[in-house]
Amino acid sequence: MLNFCYRLNGNLKDLDPSLFDSDQGPTEEYENLRRRIYSNTKEIWYYINHELGKLMTEDIKVEKIQAILDQVADRKRSLLSDQQKLPELDGYHEWRQNEAANVSDLIQRRLKYLQNPPDCREARKVICNLNKGCGFGCQLHHIVYCLIFAYATERTLILNSKGWRYNTKGWDYVFEPISDSCTTAYDDKVMPWPVRYDAKVVSLPFIDSISQKPKFLPLAIPKDLAHRIVRFNGDPASWWIGQMLKYILKPRSSMQKAINETIAKMNFKSPIVGVHIRRTDKVGTEAAFHHIHEYMTHVKDYYDQLELTRVVDVRRVYLATDDANVLEDARKKYPQYEVVGDAGIARTAATHRRYTPQSLAGLLLDLRMLSACDHLVCTFSSQVGRVAYEIMQTNRVDASESFFSLDDIYYFGGQNAHDRRAIMSHNAQGKEDISFQVGDLIGVAGNHWNGYGRGTNKRTNLNGLIPWYKTADHLVLYPFPEYKQVPQYSDTRQKDL
Amino acid sequence: MLNFCYRLNGNLKDLDPSLFDSDQGPTEEYENLRRRIYSNTKEIWYYINHELGKLMTEDIKVEKIQAILDQVADRKRSLLSDQQKLPELDGYHEWRQNEAANVSDLIQRRLKYLQNPPDCREARKVICNLNKGCGFGCQLHHIVYCLIFAYATERTLILNSKGWRYNTKGWDYVFEPISDSCTTAYDDKVMPWPVRYDAKVVSLPFIDSISQKPKFLPLAIPKDLAHRIVRFNGDPASWWIGQMLKYILKPRSSMQKAINETIAKMNFKSPIVGVHIRRTDKVGTEAAFHHIHEYMTHVKDYYDQLELTRVVDVRRVYLATDDANVLEDARKKYPQYEVVGDAGIARTAATHRRYTPQSLAGLLLDLRMLSACDHLVCTFSSQVGRVAYEIMQTNRVDASESFFSLDDIYYFGGQNAHDRRAIMSHNAQGKEDISFQVGDLIGVAGNHWNGYGRGTNKRTNLNGLIPWYKTADHLVLYPFPEYKQVPQYSDTRQKDL
Repeated sequence: MLNFCYRLNGNLKDLDPSLFDSDQGPTEEYENLRRRIYSNTKEIWYYINHELGKLMTEDIKVEKIQAILDQVADRKRSLLSDQQKLPELDGYHEWRQNEAANVSDLIQRRLKYLQNPPDCREARKVICNLNKGCGFGCQLHHIVYCLIFAYATERTLILNSKGWRYNTKGWDYVFEPISDSCTTAYDDKVMPWPVRYDAKVVSLPFIDSISQKPKFLPLAIPKDLAHRIVRFNGDPASWWIGQMLKYILKPRSSMQKAINETIAKMNFKSPIVGVHIRRTDKVGTEAAFHHIHEYMTHVKDYYDQLELTRVVDVRRVYLATDDANVLEDARKKYPQYEVVGDAGIARTAATHRRYTPQSLAGLLLDLRMLSACDHLVCTFSSQVGRVAYEIMQTNRVDASESFFSLDDIYYFGGQNAHDRRAIMSHNAQGKEDISFQVGDLIGVAGNHWNGYGRGTNKRTNLNGLIPWYKTADHLVLYPFPEYKQVPQYSDTRQKDL
Repeated sequence: MLNFCYRLNGNLKDLDPSLFDSDQGPTEEYENLRRRIYSNTKEIWYYINHELGKLMTEDIKVEKIQAILDQVADRKRSLLSDQQKLPELDGYHEWRQNEAANVSDLIQRRLKYLQNPPDCREARKVICNLNKGCGFGCQLHHIVYCLIFAYATERTLILNSKGWRYNTKGWDYVFEPISDSCTTAYDDKVMPWPVRYDAKVVSLPFIDSISQKPKFLPLAIPKDLAHRIVRFNGDPASWWIGQMLKYILKPRSSMQKAINETIAKMNFKSPIVGVHIRRTDKVGTEAAFHHIHEYMTHVKDYYDQLELTRVVDVRRVYLATDDANVLEDARKKYPQYEVVGDAGIARTAATHRRYTPQSLAGLLLDLRMLSACDHLVCTFSSQVGRVAYEIMQTNRVDASESFFSLDDIYYFGGQNAHDRRAIMSHNAQGKEDISFQVGDLIGVAGNHWNGYGRGTNKRTNLNGLIPWYKTADHLVLYPFPEYKQVPQYSDTRQKDL
């Protein structure tokens, strides 16, 4: 910057401010590296934790090995706590905040532009039916998928929500409409996608049954924004999906008021860890049962680490669940925690009264609270867990290290392949792990949280365990339209510069 | 910087360039944190290595535990390798290089100013006798001590070296004189230090026998420079001592030529690890014996880590020793390494011909080569090991992570107390470790390289083991004279700005 300033010599006010912006922030390499360090430090911990954990079941000096584990845990907490301070101290903290706000604002204005075409009757459209027979989280993801489709194809999204299972009067009765000016396809012919020609109005199937899956579906992100997002966020795919939710999910003032009144009665204060325990319907079929202590182990670890840098008077937990017994159980078993949560919500979330306006209000409250917590412990097999995380991503600059999922890594239901790229080579050590070379793409199925994940090397087609730390997330960039008609900065922001 | 540039609006050329410098670099907190992360990652490794190492002697599934250890080792190498890239990528790399050069240049010019007073006859002086009956490393440290004393008391240093054991003709026969214009105290009365009044000429005792040890002795550093040094170097005390050596240790052209000719015949190429193995005189009395494989374990670890980021065709070692058998032994036992080193030097370094000009030339060559290596493995109980590291510090911006000492942590013989400050509290877990609170000063005796060090809590007076990662080095700042007569930038540097 010194030389740069010196070379100018002229009137700085005449210059494009964005020239300065790009010079000030950290490089992509730095951000990737910093996150990789954080992630790999955890990987080390997972590994030791797992291996020594196994040793202990083998009837040898358990106490001693437990003491070692406790020591390693203390040391890794200290290490991670320090590493969390890095981005606060590296001189780019404010820059990241500004940039995250700018890119989010740009996307929101592009969506608003797309949803409010100058001539609605002439506009190309895509129709999305909210009749998907699934829970609210799943339905939100359905709309997200439709909105990404709309953004990618420059079509205005028309949401059909009459007879919606959560409110028969429709989406707009609870939320602000997704367009102020264009909410119907008139009498134009609706062609089911995929279409052979560039039909004016297309309707979308559910993502699960889509044929010829478009490459712009998650976890792809827009190429024109990718290099900006990467510089402030560690998980751009979920951040991008969060931006869709930010546009969609705007409760009307009456609903907002009801939510705010309930919140006012709760003792919701930072520090607080959000815990989402999914019980009633999916467990046993789609997802494995996880005992409450599995969640609480991570809550304890969060607070143990937090106490390295600040005093924690009360260890608060916001517990969202569809089983009221879990709330009672948690309060009984963990008296040292203050468990915030509403048994009423849990009861309405129970399967038999799941699809009611009351249940929806409870779900919205849970999502609002979970995403406002300092940290989130959940199962990403649950859509509610993932939606909470996606909203969390829009609430802060980078929430990519603010959660722990007991089961799946982050995904979007119906997504395209999720790959990791090998950045170190690996020679298989046994029958379970697979070899790979630097640059190989590995389709990943999940992380076992013991230092290894499972995946398929796309070069060799071999499937097996992979040491996670030798790989890095492979971001998929897609050339979405760039919406050059929408200015880079909004009027109010431009005034500030 | 953006706002800063904007606020200026005037002609930037009129501004003091140093205004910009201070705004550009990383903060002290960031640098301390970054180094702490690095250090604590190693500490985790030491801990696991030590504990699992012990387990293995206990006759239980040795192979399995060895496999775990190997895994953890791989992971920590990857982690450290990444962390080494941090300072190259965080946007401050060039700044650190410039700042290190500027501060070094300033100190060298201050020393030149001190050593060349306008009126030598009237100048206050301190006399240093080079008749200390010890090896070359020890004698160098003796002169360093004298020069720091001179700098602290604003006295010109007069070096008496007639009859010097390495060259009876004196220091100036081998090296450039430490003053161009002031090399005698004339007939002024010489008062042995400590003096009751401000005598014009004082002579110094050996540091070991000094009474009323001045607070400006190592490991203290000048207060006016401390906050600059801390921002580019992880071990300011040894960097400061290195600056003294840089001023003192300038071989005359004939000696330099002889050294260069010997180097030209060697296959000295990067990557290369310097190993200094001290054998003949001290071992068994002052220091414990360390087998060559102890050194080579760390050399192997260095190369294993380096290979994560680059191809290493030849694993080169520069081996300096006072025992020619060690060289032969190393070449026999480690054929996979290319061992660079001169048996002739080792032979002249052997005790019975130690104090000869030939031996001195060999020592200078070893120091030059060891300090030019990418990494150094040695015992800091040996002065040669420490001098090599101190020179290394002057050769690069920050060499504080470029060595491993098999025994002592860094020290300066005769130094004042070396403390670490508790930055996390610790409650003693057993009989061996001691408790401390945040802020406690702990006088340290050493690091056991197993996750613990030994020290005495100065508040409680208890001595015992301390978990090293809960402490940080306590820098001692002393208000040395600030030499305001010496400009901040030399003429040539000022032209560049």
